[in-house]
Amino acid sequence: MSKSTFYHAGCPVCVSAEQEIINLIGPDGINIVHLGEDKEEIPAAEESGVKSVPALVTPTGNVLHINFGADIADLK
Amino acid sequence: MSKSTFYHAGCPVCVSAEQEIINLIGPDGINIVHLGEDKEEIPAAEESGVKSVPALVTPTGNVLHINFGADIADLK
Repeated sequence: MSKSTFYHAGCPVCVSAEQEIINLIGPDGINIVHLGEDKEEIPAAEESGVKSVPALVTPTGNVLHINFGADIADLK
Repeated sequence: MSKSTFYHAGCPVCVSAEQEIINLIGPDGINIVHLGEDKEEIPAAEESGVKSVPALVTPTGNVLHINFGADIADLK
């Protein structure tokens, strides 16, 4: 099975959403990327269509922006 | 297992998000509620904390607002 990628930046909104998503999908189905720590991943996230965090990029390539923690521009 | 509830209103953003969520969680884990058609469900959605659709209320009671289709006030 293809994995989803969950992008976050350590904000409270992100952490809360992360826990819910892991509960729902299961930890094996998700790569977690902390854009605040791994800034070199930001271009790939933007290329996937991520505008803000937290966001989940699904195996089909769609981006689900979940609640709102931070604009991706503010992470650079 | 407790179910999540996915609230939507038939908008394109909602339908796209619904399909992704069903793919990720599986159809057995979700109740789907169309607030555009079932307006009597709007108070319960608001009580759960739903501000806009599409939104997923998890078994733990947290609300994940996914992307943005419509403000719940516009559905009344």
